[in-house]
Amino acid sequence: MSLIVQKYGGSSVADIDRIRNVANRVAEYRRRGDQVVVVVSAMKGVTDNLIGMAKSFMPVPSEREMDVLLSTGEQTTIALLAIALQSMDISAASLTGAQAGIVTDGVHSKAKILNITPEKIHELLDAGNVTIVAGFQGQTSEGNITTLGRGGSDLTAIALAAALEADLCQIFTDVDGVYTCDPRVVESAKKLEEVSYDEMLELASLGAKVMQSRSVEFAKKFGVIFEVRSSLNNNPGTIVKEETKSMEDVVIRGVSLDKDQAKITLVGVPDRPGVASRIFQKLADSAINVDMIVQNISHGTETPATDLSFTIDKPDVAKALGVIDAMHEEVGFGNVLTDENIGKLSIVGVGMRSHSGVAAKMFEVLAGAEVNIQMISTSEIKISVVIDLDQSEGATKEVHNAFLG
Amino acid sequence: MSLIVQKYGGSSVADIDRIRNVANRVAEYRRRGDQVVVVVSAMKGVTDNLIGMAKSFMPVPSEREMDVLLSTGEQTTIALLAIALQSMDISAASLTGAQAGIVTDGVHSKAKILNITPEKIHELLDAGNVTIVAGFQGQTSEGNITTLGRGGSDLTAIALAAALEADLCQIFTDVDGVYTCDPRVVESAKKLEEVSYDEMLELASLGAKVMQSRSVEFAKKFGVIFEVRSSLNNNPGTIVKEETKSMEDVVIRGVSLDKDQAKITLVGVPDRPGVASRIFQKLADSAINVDMIVQNISHGTETPATDLSFTIDKPDVAKALGVIDAMHEEVGFGNVLTDENIGKLSIVGVGMRSHSGVAAKMFEVLAGAEVNIQMISTSEIKISVVIDLDQSEGATKEVHNAFLG
Repeated sequence: MSLIVQKYGGSSVADIDRIRNVANRVAEYRRRGDQVVVVVSAMKGVTDNLIGMAKSFMPVPSEREMDVLLSTGEQTTIALLAIALQSMDISAASLTGAQAGIVTDGVHSKAKILNITPEKIHELLDAGNVTIVAGFQGQTSEGNITTLGRGGSDLTAIALAAALEADLCQIFTDVDGVYTCDPRVVESAKKLEEVSYDEMLELASLGAKVMQSRSVEFAKKFGVIFEVRSSLNNNPGTIVKEETKSMEDVVIRGVSLDKDQAKITLVGVPDRPGVASRIFQKLADSAINVDMIVQNISHGTETPATDLSFTIDKPDVAKALGVIDAMHEEVGFGNVLTDENIGKLSIVGVGMRSHSGVAAKMFEVLAGAEVNIQMISTSEIKISVVIDLDQSEGATKEVHNAFLG
Repeated sequence: MSLIVQKYGGSSVADIDRIRNVANRVAEYRRRGDQVVVVVSAMKGVTDNLIGMAKSFMPVPSEREMDVLLSTGEQTTIALLAIALQSMDISAASLTGAQAGIVTDGVHSKAKILNITPEKIHELLDAGNVTIVAGFQGQTSEGNITTLGRGGSDLTAIALAAALEADLCQIFTDVDGVYTCDPRVVESAKKLEEVSYDEMLELASLGAKVMQSRSVEFAKKFGVIFEVRSSLNNNPGTIVKEETKSMEDVVIRGVSLDKDQAKITLVGVPDRPGVASRIFQKLADSAINVDMIVQNISHGTETPATDLSFTIDKPDVAKALGVIDAMHEEVGFGNVLTDENIGKLSIVGVGMRSHSGVAAKMFEVLAGAEVNIQMISTSEIKISVVIDLDQSEGATKEVHNAFLG
């Protein structure tokens, strides 16, 4: 008898029929004799509807009350799924995040899980129930309802798998697993059988929208092995786990393309200590997420200056330019250049660490396709380049073909 | 500074505009400096929608899960009302039934309140918040969500008023208060300024649908004085409280007509001990609510027999006839007569106790209108008669005119 934690997202429980499908799948596992804990999101559309009602009163409603409001979405799903299972003669009982013992800090709308006391879950499982837990939510130690923010239901599932020491954690979604590249960009993209936490993290942060980074980080921290798979078929998915020796035999695990970034360049930034920190602190204070940063050696001798380029999410450009403008006098740089017409192409693989020449090969492929590289950034297991947006899909295909084709 | 508990039902919070109206009203009290606790129901239609979804899985879903499901309705309203108040610069915070400390027994879908620990409410009030509590719900001491059944939000308000020792408890509804008669039947019906718990109970059980009996009983038990008034205007409502000396000066408080009952007569029931108890026990076992019962002296000498008539809710007739049929052989009565064409006309008033001739006057009025009385039943403060349905509205007007016109 195994203990399995399964998570189904909003599109998997979008309506009555989909909930029935999920119940069928859960019932299958249960009938094999496994203990099953199911984590569900709100039915697709419900959350947006609730947000719409709240915003009809004020543009930025209180986060405490938004948490009370939005948590009803998952609570509705858990009860409906329990009833769907009961209609199939499977004993089932639902728990809200609070009832499931999920204790968070008090940062409403993006709370962090502090600890889980899963006694109630064990109790219900031991009594023979499929136990259904509302994802995305918890409560503070003072008893206030909180939500975990984007990707919160994944986090609930992985945190529960850790707390329950589950044998298996399955994240059901609307894709078959993690691919070597986005199949919409590269038709020959292949599903990965397994991927390491670090590779998954790089892929997640690079625009492969399967999962939020925080859930993968949590899984890595607590060593929770999980599978990403589809709720629409029975294909095996992708196992995400700690890196193994054999993983290094594969140089590149995946290729990803992010078309949602913009590049900002500050020309002639004075090359003295503290300038970069000042700029990026101000951007961080305004909640602008800076991704790649490139600064080259300074030129000029009397007043050495350098060009500083960085990428941010496209929707943040206006806000970022405002922040930068306000610093113009204080820091004293020259022109500010903005380019929204870029794509960030990345290759990821733990195998890079033990294989040389990976970067050279990537640049060679791009040169062969006459793609100019504007920025380069590397980590131990990742190489990212910023290129022209119009060339980015073609370049992605070439790189995928060269390494994984 | 007073502490006021206000309750708003489903039609008062039916949509965003109505919720805004409620917020305006609450804000008015709050701005006067009063502490306000608001109890709300689910938005009209929400509960039915949730029930519909659950029933698409099975006709009789688990009551535990229905409670988890339905309690989201009030939880949605409390958050929206809190946000509406905040948009008017009124500090507000919401609490689910569980968070508000409402502890119930474990009878899902019709739980009884066992006790209330209102620390959290006091805490929020003391911090200057309008405190909004989800009506109709609580949790067991084991932490399971429960709902209180029909009229549950009224009960929440009255129980909170008792626990908080509130200065005032207001039940806002879509009528102006309690009337001497249904204004749709008797145009000259007048709103009562005050009514005793007992009169209110009789009126409630007689078809004046303002409130469920259980809430009035609870208020009587704990001496909670409350006002029934409209959420659509500023008219004063009806105060419901312990009987006072002056109340007795009024002979009749109200007249009510119930057209939803049917009469069943068992002809020739053997007049021996235990027969009636046997019949009514069987009906009770089938959850059939018997209202009036009339049995006259027996006739016949060798095998004394009597006719037994009683009234039940019309929708229960088929079920009742089934129960009676099954007892035919065992009890040995003659024909069974059913009459759905009846009206039950009642007059209520604590003043009856000290005034004689009330029944005589009522019967005289009915005789004058050529209305035949089929059954009579009396209590200390009530006289009910069963008459022909077609004559019932006319008779109600005559009686109202004679006593209250």
